[in-house]
Parts: sequence; structure tokens; C-alpha cells
Amino acid sequence: MPKPSAANLFSELPASLAAELVNVLVETPTIRIERIVSTGQCSEPGFWYDQEQSEWVIVLKGEAQLCFADGTPAKTLCPGDHLVIPAHQKHRIEWTSASEPTVWLAVFFPA
Amino acid sequence: MPKPSAANLFSELPASLAAELVNVLVETPTIRIERIVSTGQCSEPGFWYDQEQSEWVIVLKGEAQLCFADGTPAKTLCPGDHLVIPAHQKHRIEWTSASEPTVWLAVFFPA
Repeated sequence: MPKPSAANLFSELPASLAAELVNVLVETPTIRIERIVSTGQCSEPGFWYDQEQSEWVIVLKGEAQLCFADGTPAKTLCPGDHLVIPAHQKHRIEWTSASEPTVWLAVFFPA
Repeated sequence: MPKPSAANLFSELPASLAAELVNVLVETPTIRIERIVSTGQCSEPGFWYDQEQSEWVIVLKGEAQLCFADGTPAKTLCPGDHLVIPAHQKHRIEWTSASEPTVWLAVFFPA
């Protein structure tokens, strides 16, 4: 099992990034746990995530908005807000806070 | 899949509890994600958790100390500190903060 790369989830938070920062905290044949740091990034226009695995995701710092292709209302996520994105539910990140880093925790697991 | 019982991870935080509060956020045949709230609780004297599954655990609020039966040094966890507890690594909660609720997030997954 790989050693966590961000020993404290709120450490090593860059103020600005060219692209989202992803630290894989746990990876096994069945699950993956990631810390994701965004500094204003969002999904490219027209891009949708379409994932083989289900994802449980929480915002722990900052703010972000998720949109869904299936008509599910957009969700603005503040610290502590979490949801399950079932496998193949197409979604995109509409925006993330431009004023502070947004820290996500994502757990990917078999659908 | 059960609906999250704590829609925001930091909501519904009781100031004191007779016993730890566990909300199951996700449960599938392979994984379980729990929010655990402690208000000063610790493991009974002589009790060790000995789990079939591996556990990734993080403290998000409050403070706690984990001890291990195998001689691994005790770990004091502050917000953002996380670790993997491999299946069958016997461990106990030595103490949790008495001055504020401690919020844990735990992901159980196949060893």
C-alpha cells in the first residue's frame, strides 16, 4: 500500500496551481482514496466525467459546484457537504472557489 | 445504497453523548464509510479493536489518540491527520477531546 503523500490532509496547500493537485492516499484493487486540491479550476467546457466506479466525495475546505448531465440539479458544496456519484452518472465541476484552495476527499469504489 | 444520515459532516454535532455516535454514510458489499462523533469517549480498559477489514481513518475536528498492541507508537490525531490501520492490527482509542466533539471519518475496505 502506498504511503500517504499528504500526511496531514490540510498540509501542503498551494495558494495557486496550474492544474488540480491529486494525492492518492490509499489504492488497492478495490478502492482508491484521493485528496484533490483545486484553486479555481473547473472542468473544460463540454467535458463530463463518466466513471466506471462509484464515488463518494466531500468538500472539506473552500467551495465548489457540481453539475450533472441527467438533469439532477447542480449542487453547491460547502465544507462538510458530501454526496455519492453513482458509476456513469455524468458530472462536471462547474466552478471551485477562486479565493482559497478547495480541498476534496474522494473515495472510489466498485459500483 | 442508504441515504447519508448526516447530510453535512459537521452538522448535528451533539455537545455530549452517552456513547459514540456512528452514522453510516455509504455501505456496499465491499466498503463502508462512517462518520463517528466522540465527546470524550475512549475504548474500555483492555479492549482492542481487531477488524476483518482495513480502515483508513481521519480526524476532521477535535483530537484523539490511537494506541496499538504491536508496539507501534501511539498516535495523537489532530484535524487532517490520517492513517491506515491494516486488518487485524489491534488498536484502541486511548482518549478523545473532552472539550469539543471529535469528528472522525472512517473508510473500511477489503484487506
